[in-house]
Amino acid sequence: MLFLCFMQAISKNQIKYIRSLSQIKFRKAHQAYIVEGLKNAAEWLQQGADLEYIVALPAWFEQNAELLKAYEPRKCLIATEEDFEKISGFKTPNQVLLVAKMPQQKDMIAATGNNTWTLMLDKVQDPGNLGTIIRTADWFGIKTIICSPDCVEQFNPKVIQSTMGSLLRVHCVYTDLAAFLQARPGTPSYAAILGGSSLNAAQKCAPGFIIMGNESKGISEEVKALVQHHLTIDRIGPDAESLNVAVATGIFCHTLIQ
Amino acid sequence: MLFLCFMQAISKNQIKYIRSLSQIKFRKAHQAYIVEGLKNAAEWLQQGADLEYIVALPAWFEQNAELLKAYEPRKCLIATEEDFEKISGFKTPNQVLLVAKMPQQKDMIAATGNNTWTLMLDKVQDPGNLGTIIRTADWFGIKTIICSPDCVEQFNPKVIQSTMGSLLRVHCVYTDLAAFLQARPGTPSYAAILGGSSLNAAQKCAPGFIIMGNESKGISEEVKALVQHHLTIDRIGPDAESLNVAVATGIFCHTLIQ
Repeated sequence: MLFLCFMQAISKNQIKYIRSLSQIKFRKAHQAYIVEGLKNAAEWLQQGADLEYIVALPAWFEQNAELLKAYEPRKCLIATEEDFEKISGFKTPNQVLLVAKMPQQKDMIAATGNNTWTLMLDKVQDPGNLGTIIRTADWFGIKTIICSPDCVEQFNPKVIQSTMGSLLRVHCVYTDLAAFLQARPGTPSYAAILGGSSLNAAQKCAPGFIIMGNESKGISEEVKALVQHHLTIDRIGPDAESLNVAVATGIFCHTLIQ
Repeated sequence: MLFLCFMQAISKNQIKYIRSLSQIKFRKAHQAYIVEGLKNAAEWLQQGADLEYIVALPAWFEQNAELLKAYEPRKCLIATEEDFEKISGFKTPNQVLLVAKMPQQKDMIAATGNNTWTLMLDKVQDPGNLGTIIRTADWFGIKTIICSPDCVEQFNPKVIQSTMGSLLRVHCVYTDLAAFLQARPGTPSYAAILGGSSLNAAQKCAPGFIIMGNESKGISEEVKALVQHHLTIDRIGPDAESLNVAVATGIFCHTLIQ
């Protein structure tokens, strides 16, 4: 209760600012993104994520004082249910919303490819798929995902909903995949391509790049031409057309990374 | 063009009927469900699915006469864009919508467990997850999914959007999982349970049941007690909390079914 007296009520300008972050252009301009929902907020706070604001109902602040220890009270903004209706992207009313700072990405690319597994995504467009892939990468110890510039943005609210906190440990770097591969000819590359050799024959390989393609078109011809191993998940059902890209990513990671 | 003269315009009652099918109680009462979108509609028509109505804009009927060969013109209903706004569950205007009849399910349970792989789902609640699991089952040649009665319904529009036509080849049967397992003590059962033995040690097993649990709570204690093999996908990232259930299903199927 004492803690609450050091906190301010959210202002009109802050509401306006937070609303603007639902759009990618403002997220990029301010290098900030929104985290919503009880479970996600707890995860971001527990990990000590770099935050601009913690917006919540008074009751949430009272019940979660422990989570707030590492944060200055001036970052905490008290909101009403009406305020939440204005700032929330959720259909049902919310109790807490964070404004988080985007991490600095300059040194991430350098860390890839040195006897570690790295995931590469060529035009993955569905935010739910990217979120699920980030969560899968976290499970398999992958720290960096190299995304083509036309992949969905990692700080899209729907991506954040599907990552379950893994976005704090796995980072996406957006860059041209062909140029990236051309600069690293010595690193093995394994791509999911229909009609390739059986993925099962590729067990216990040297670490390198696992490359997955767009939901309907797969991997672009330009990237395909630079990949060493074209691999396919054995199909048993004769009429099945394809697998979901996040499911295929999980199968590739489980088979290759051990 | 000639074909169009045998078709009727959609009536107010038909619009009302189709709108009602967005609710599970009316889908169950009428044993019918909706299929939307160009790609899904083409898939249902190509497979000769049992349909009540094919509702489309005149231009779609003109361009897709080939797909309609197997269907009586009286099942085809011409709709305007305004009609589609009333009947469609999509945000963006649509060109075609099917009303399909639910398949008869009485003999499906009998076909499971005789040296074939069958998937079982315990309270999977997200429609996107169920749709992706149905698509994954199709890829691995699984024809039947035994769902607990509290799983999401297979004819939910969001399930249909994620199945990509696999729902025509893979059927979900809703029944009590514990009673189902108790009646089949001789069939091997493999369940995804955190803290079980490594999934990798379970390769080349005899066919049986692959059991996956609820998105946050996993498999219920009652079902867990009846399962022979408790298996876990090896985790490499130390802080990752869990995998998406559809991704985990794909990894289980790929590892166990060969």
